[in-house]
Amino acid sequence: MEIQLKDLEAAAERLKPILHHTELDLSSTFSAMTGGTIYLKYENRQKTGSFKIRGASNKIATLIEQGKNCPVVASSAGNHAQGVAYAAKKFGIPATIVMPKAAPIAKVQATEGYGAKVVLAGDCYDDAYAEARRICEEEGAEFLHPYNDPDVIAGQGTLGLEILSDLPYVDIIIVPAGGGGLLAGVASAVKLINPRVKVYGVQAEGAPAIARSFAEKKLVTTDSASTIADGIAVKFPGDLAVELINEHADGVVTVSDNEIANAILLLIERCKEIVEPAGATPLAAVLSGKIDVRGKRVVCLMSGGNIDVSFVSNLIERGLVARGRRLRFSATLIDRPGSLVHMLNAISGAGANILSVEHDKISARLGPNETAVHVVCEVGGKEHAETVIQKLAESGIIAEQE
Amino acid sequence: MEIQLKDLEAAAERLKPILHHTELDLSSTFSAMTGGTIYLKYENRQKTGSFKIRGASNKIATLIEQGKNCPVVASSAGNHAQGVAYAAKKFGIPATIVMPKAAPIAKVQATEGYGAKVVLAGDCYDDAYAEARRICEEEGAEFLHPYNDPDVIAGQGTLGLEILSDLPYVDIIIVPAGGGGLLAGVASAVKLINPRVKVYGVQAEGAPAIARSFAEKKLVTTDSASTIADGIAVKFPGDLAVELINEHADGVVTVSDNEIANAILLLIERCKEIVEPAGATPLAAVLSGKIDVRGKRVVCLMSGGNIDVSFVSNLIERGLVARGRRLRFSATLIDRPGSLVHMLNAISGAGANILSVEHDKISARLGPNETAVHVVCEVGGKEHAETVIQKLAESGIIAEQE
Repeated sequence: MEIQLKDLEAAAERLKPILHHTELDLSSTFSAMTGGTIYLKYENRQKTGSFKIRGASNKIATLIEQGKNCPVVASSAGNHAQGVAYAAKKFGIPATIVMPKAAPIAKVQATEGYGAKVVLAGDCYDDAYAEARRICEEEGAEFLHPYNDPDVIAGQGTLGLEILSDLPYVDIIIVPAGGGGLLAGVASAVKLINPRVKVYGVQAEGAPAIARSFAEKKLVTTDSASTIADGIAVKFPGDLAVELINEHADGVVTVSDNEIANAILLLIERCKEIVEPAGATPLAAVLSGKIDVRGKRVVCLMSGGNIDVSFVSNLIERGLVARGRRLRFSATLIDRPGSLVHMLNAISGAGANILSVEHDKISARLGPNETAVHVVCEVGGKEHAETVIQKLAESGIIAEQE
Repeated sequence: MEIQLKDLEAAAERLKPILHHTELDLSSTFSAMTGGTIYLKYENRQKTGSFKIRGASNKIATLIEQGKNCPVVASSAGNHAQGVAYAAKKFGIPATIVMPKAAPIAKVQATEGYGAKVVLAGDCYDDAYAEARRICEEEGAEFLHPYNDPDVIAGQGTLGLEILSDLPYVDIIIVPAGGGGLLAGVASAVKLINPRVKVYGVQAEGAPAIARSFAEKKLVTTDSASTIADGIAVKFPGDLAVELINEHADGVVTVSDNEIANAILLLIERCKEIVEPAGATPLAAVLSGKIDVRGKRVVCLMSGGNIDVSFVSNLIERGLVARGRRLRFSATLIDRPGSLVHMLNAISGAGANILSVEHDKISARLGPNETAVHVVCEVGGKEHAETVIQKLAESGIIAEQE
């Protein structure tokens, strides 16, 4: 199978009234950090918060052009659900989205908010998929696959056209890869227009089916898909997608969950931008040196922004610990009135802000008149943490960092 | 004093090569929530992360045009520091920024990163200000006031030109107000061009000097300025700014810190956008109904995005508690092996995710064979929390929400 330029152009025409043309901006911060000229494509600001609306809209528009005005069904608890729901509403077609019973309430509400009917079925994606197929049979509806469909792939490929039109001199385009639809579409589009431009895919280390498929030049599936990047946690990539990727992409690399988390945190701090884990993988690949960008004009596609705020808060806390902005230590005090105040005075005298103090009197390693305390404080960085430890020592308190 | 249209046009010309023309986007979410047509102006994506670069750049450019090629000095631990540093570098002028000794390391580094010299002096803003004035005397440098200067006000006023040019049919423009430079500039610009358009300022309840000055039609200062919105925590607004505001603005309202925090959280969740507390005040005013926007085309200016990530994480946690996404409860268990497992099984059976468990055996209200536990879990919302409490009751455990 091949995607033709006319398919891509037709897709771009169909999508024009539905989508944002998202911004492509130079990041001086990430350029300075890598030695490349790094541009970010803000597809996280796309309607529904991700690129998935492109493929879904192109598919539904194509069905209508073919006279198939039937309802559509999809199974997804992620961005595809919202993309299909939004696109179906725009085209006036009824949509049913099947999600596993454990789907987050926020995602159910967002999908219903776009006017789709949500059915909760089964404990995992496979159960939801089976139920979606059953509904299609029963109602004569059309099943919309999230990535293994030429019209979906062509829809995602419009991102390649947009990037080449906004930055004709680009050298490298980097996109996330899970099921493979996005990478297949962008690689096909870019190579048709300008084969000089390199296209790389990025996967999570815990879900590397496409990276393996690319290395072995055949479709490889994995037994598990374990990563914080839920948007690309895919065990079975599409065979159509893999065929196109193996033909057109220039490489597929993997990044660790820690590398992804660090990229998300930097995007929040430096760009004031919320990006979901899958969408941060291209930047993670660049920052970790997995793709050599020195002296090159590079576009990192931030494919989506749908991330639970509770997870954002978790990531920030971990990031602050990793950067030395949190000091955790334990110390042994004499168990008498005033000991704790003495220690707290030393900490505040060193300019640190206490977040939590826990007392422990029954640890086996303590003497009968001793008490252990576990302390977490906010500090300016690793040097400041050392100053706090030093001030405690001057007050006769030996603090052990945890 | 009046700002003339020619001053604003000259400022816009000077700023063109230095600034982003930031996006102005319709928010369907906030429009649906308020009954108005709500546009967001993304000045948080401006270079240096805030609008302050406009006034600083216009001032420095004007000095150079007047033949004053001298070094510049400012006192600020906030956005003005970064704006002056960036602008001075662009124009090739040495800049010194005086900050209080307790200034966050991140802000010091950001300002130095733009090429300015940072001097740490004194314990509060007033000390830093005195030192900055002393340096000006000693070095023959020019002091750049953050808001009480006609050239700074004209620079900020270019935002009014941009908004009117991007959305000529706008009915209401809402901007944050602290020292008053931004509100004075935008109100002056808008009324010169289209007096039909209303301009409102928003202050924090804990720092309402301009709101009071507007109500009393004279310059009013406050004894304290206490708010999470550090960017507008100002006790002494500028007299030039207040004169222009009292002449041209249509109203100044105040919002609470909780209203600001809620607006920040919604911007993260719905728009994937990081906005600092001051920058979220216009949206807070709209969402809390302080300004009636029904049936109107409204622009909320998000003036900056410089917020500590540690504070973002804190805001998210508070927001999750407020929305019932965190369930905190205590329960009394019989102190024997298996009691805790029994309770934890009931919680996981109800689909809640445990974040922390604390055991307490020495509370006065406990019987000798009892133990208290304090539990925090993650739940889908208030209904889910009720289900968890119900499941615990069915297992014989009385949980009291905390």
